[in-house]
Amino acid sequence: MKGFWHSRAGQARRATMLQGPSNRRPNTALHVMGLALIFVALGMAVCALIELLSSNRDSVALVLGAIVCGGFGTMLWLRTRAGSTRARDVFAAVGWTWVTMTLFGAIPYLAAGTFATAGVGFFEQLVNSVFESASGYSTTGSSTLVDFERPGRGLMMYRQLSQWYGGMGIVVLAVTVLPYLGVGGLDLVAAEAPGPTSDRLAPRVSETARRLWILYVLLTVAVAVLLFAVPGPTLYDSVAHALTTASTGGFSPYQTSIGYYDSVLVELVVIAGMLYGAINFTLHWRAAGGDFAAYRRDSELRSFVVLILAAATSVIATLWICDSWGSIEAFRAGLFNVVSLGTSTGFGNATDANSVGNFVLWAPAAQFVILFLFVVGASSGSTSGGIKVMRLRILVGHVIRSVRRVQQPRAVIAVKHGGTAVSEDVVSRLAGFFLIYVLLICFGVFALAALGVDLETSIGTIVSTLGNMGPALGEAGPTASFAEAFGVPARLLLVVFMLIGRLEIFPMLLMFAAPYRALRQKMSV
Amino acid sequence: MKGFWHSRAGQARRATMLQGPSNRRPNTALHVMGLALIFVALGMAVCALIELLSSNRDSVALVLGAIVCGGFGTMLWLRTRAGSTRARDVFAAVGWTWVTMTLFGAIPYLAAGTFATAGVGFFEQLVNSVFESASGYSTTGSSTLVDFERPGRGLMMYRQLSQWYGGMGIVVLAVTVLPYLGVGGLDLVAAEAPGPTSDRLAPRVSETARRLWILYVLLTVAVAVLLFAVPGPTLYDSVAHALTTASTGGFSPYQTSIGYYDSVLVELVVIAGMLYGAINFTLHWRAAGGDFAAYRRDSELRSFVVLILAAATSVIATLWICDSWGSIEAFRAGLFNVVSLGTSTGFGNATDANSVGNFVLWAPAAQFVILFLFVVGASSGSTSGGIKVMRLRILVGHVIRSVRRVQQPRAVIAVKHGGTAVSEDVVSRLAGFFLIYVLLICFGVFALAALGVDLETSIGTIVSTLGNMGPALGEAGPTASFAEAFGVPARLLLVVFMLIGRLEIFPMLLMFAAPYRALRQKMSV
Repeated sequence: MKGFWHSRAGQARRATMLQGPSNRRPNTALHVMGLALIFVALGMAVCALIELLSSNRDSVALVLGAIVCGGFGTMLWLRTRAGSTRARDVFAAVGWTWVTMTLFGAIPYLAAGTFATAGVGFFEQLVNSVFESASGYSTTGSSTLVDFERPGRGLMMYRQLSQWYGGMGIVVLAVTVLPYLGVGGLDLVAAEAPGPTSDRLAPRVSETARRLWILYVLLTVAVAVLLFAVPGPTLYDSVAHALTTASTGGFSPYQTSIGYYDSVLVELVVIAGMLYGAINFTLHWRAAGGDFAAYRRDSELRSFVVLILAAATSVIATLWICDSWGSIEAFRAGLFNVVSLGTSTGFGNATDANSVGNFVLWAPAAQFVILFLFVVGASSGSTSGGIKVMRLRILVGHVIRSVRRVQQPRAVIAVKHGGTAVSEDVVSRLAGFFLIYVLLICFGVFALAALGVDLETSIGTIVSTLGNMGPALGEAGPTASFAEAFGVPARLLLVVFMLIGRLEIFPMLLMFAAPYRALRQKMSV
Repeated sequence: MKGFWHSRAGQARRATMLQGPSNRRPNTALHVMGLALIFVALGMAVCALIELLSSNRDSVALVLGAIVCGGFGTMLWLRTRAGSTRARDVFAAVGWTWVTMTLFGAIPYLAAGTFATAGVGFFEQLVNSVFESASGYSTTGSSTLVDFERPGRGLMMYRQLSQWYGGMGIVVLAVTVLPYLGVGGLDLVAAEAPGPTSDRLAPRVSETARRLWILYVLLTVAVAVLLFAVPGPTLYDSVAHALTTASTGGFSPYQTSIGYYDSVLVELVVIAGMLYGAINFTLHWRAAGGDFAAYRRDSELRSFVVLILAAATSVIATLWICDSWGSIEAFRAGLFNVVSLGTSTGFGNATDANSVGNFVLWAPAAQFVILFLFVVGASSGSTSGGIKVMRLRILVGHVIRSVRRVQQPRAVIAVKHGGTAVSEDVVSRLAGFFLIYVLLICFGVFALAALGVDLETSIGTIVSTLGNMGPALGEAGPTASFAEAFGVPARLLLVVFMLIGRLEIFPMLLMFAAPYRALRQKMSV
């Protein structure tokens, strides 16, 4: 098999499979963008139908969006074919695809006048629409919506669906594409997951992707059925929340999020769904094949469970002791919010701004635990955001080694992960990723602060946005609207940070490299 | 020479030079502790004399301190001799020496009842005395003093002197000891500085140390003479501030620090002195030998200058535009505070809590610049704290390489510093140091927050304390007393963080390893 893989015949066969007939222009970025827009258009069409059958307020806007996205997407898809699969080109394709989805995905909000309240000009409406779209496709979950009753139920379902698309896209990327590009240290996943080990993407990727989608759809259906089974959520509600639970996105059609139901059963279903979505999908895949022990063997998952338990314990203790809430209230609010933020979902269970679920009112120690969860994220290969537990495990291993090296300067000590030594190259790239992450946080906090946001809100918001969390600290808590907490330039900055965070930084840094190179080549010809 | 160095004869000769007659017990830690205490005792004796000749309130306390320190120090010094010079033992010796200085150095404050105001029990007095002593010997400069007129002038001079000792100790450590122990990546200094390249300390260290002390004394005298020459400071004031300028410490005998004089000339002298103290003393040494171009050649210094200019410009612009101060006031307050915090000194020039120099009132962007300066520190091999510019330069180089690696996965790209490639081992250890620093900040902020301090103050204070800055943000600004901003347990935590920061983390992590090993050996015999 390996021989075939590297042979000329194998390469030619793969080329045909990947690229189709050769009368199309080879351009990976445009091709993937086209495909993504077709999917987005299909989603808009389905939501237009929901809108027609329910509130029928924003049907035209959704149909318009479906036509524009579908038309433009089909054109791109038919006129191009997959070209280069080098790391830098794949990254550029991924970056441009998310930007395109974000911009075209904003059409229904803008056309429906979702943000056209008194005193909001066209430019601010545009920014808010793009913000909502970016928060959707990046599965972040922060919102500039103030009046949740204004948009029709179909448009609100499209808002939920955008997160589901974002989550699906990221699972496929995280399991099938990113590990093989040799950045950010996620090659470790590659060592465990089945798939090609070449730095070129293989046709087998599409088979892997298909299975992941099946798992993802099944998870969504399961959450929807369970939500519908417990008292409270309607069919519409169940589907809407299932879409953003599976994707650990956090959008809700209700202002008070999951707090709308004030139901322990709903919260338990959502907790289970968020945890499932935040675990490496490679493990789910194995478990689906009968290998349930895969969960127990995975050292990243073990660390994640320990982390969630430790965070939940300390938050519950703080709420109970320092903030004098009752033990049951503290337990319920602590557990739900720790899981919601530890999985980078961002659902809230606050029933109003003064209830125990509004974590900006918590004692400083509990707030710091939350800030920490913002940074960590959950498992690699899942829909969660943040740095990911695996990266942090290895970096902590590097720290422990640094101390031991001082004691024994001559000793050669390897960093271990899951029982095997991690190569120095991977440790170095992980450290590089962490440093970029920290630098981005510094830059973002400075920029927000320069726009007049107080320091605590700046730090909380940048860390939350880069980790695709949603609600932040200070003025931007779980019951606040980002439209009230931030000015228009700050909202634009946060759009960029959502996308950077979602795509694990590199695609956004490299997406201008490919067009620049193409332009330079054209100039020199 | 190298042959001799590694030969048996050479080792024996060095052993004699280092260890003296062999009838003493070999113990590096106790030996160095003894020497340090003798110096501390001499300082206390001199200050007792100043106290006798001026206010004569706390003379007995200083004499008592001198007797205890002198007696105990002489005993330790005479009964032991320098033993192992392995990295871990040298680190343990350094850690225990600073802890000893801190604890014994607290005697005069405690004996004089410096903190014995109404409602302050003995334990809190003890904690405050140790805090003041730790803030002195670690050259931090934060203070629990509320009434600056209560202590006698001799005791206040001892407080200044403790920072001068701390600064002297750290320059010698940073130039002659730490670089050769192969941790934290400061080996790069070793590549440039003259001295041994073995991991064992050489007798030449004492010659290097002597020259550094001469430079340090000359700097102190120069600052004192200049301060006395400009209108304002008395002879006492000039010496007192010269001691804490050269050491980039930041203690002042006045509540309002340098703001007491409200004088541009005094501020300019202090700015020059702080900058000199924050530059690598190896460069000063070369310049003293006629090689002034050494400053220009040093890439770390160039980055430091750029950093200070950029920080000053953005702070001044923010004060002028956002906070509506006059251009001259903005320039003066911005420049002074950026240099004071960029060199990790911590002098303030606020004349009162509402004046432009009180940076907790600045716009968020300017405050973030300050927080950033807290972390960075200045040059390696200087008296400044923080991570140091050189380390950050190389880490930023690693970040840039990480991005380029994604574009060219096959390319071998080296991180450069000062025109030469940095070894991967050094980059790895630097990343380890940075990670430990970040982890310590996380732990510290969580601990402070758990003690009920708000998040902004927690972050500002931990970052400031670990960088040996002094004043922090929020409740612990330049015109606040740490006794009012923090409870007793928080103050104890900050004592630990001052020492960890001052000794670049590793000595404090390893100081319990040597006694533990000794104990285990004894148990097994």
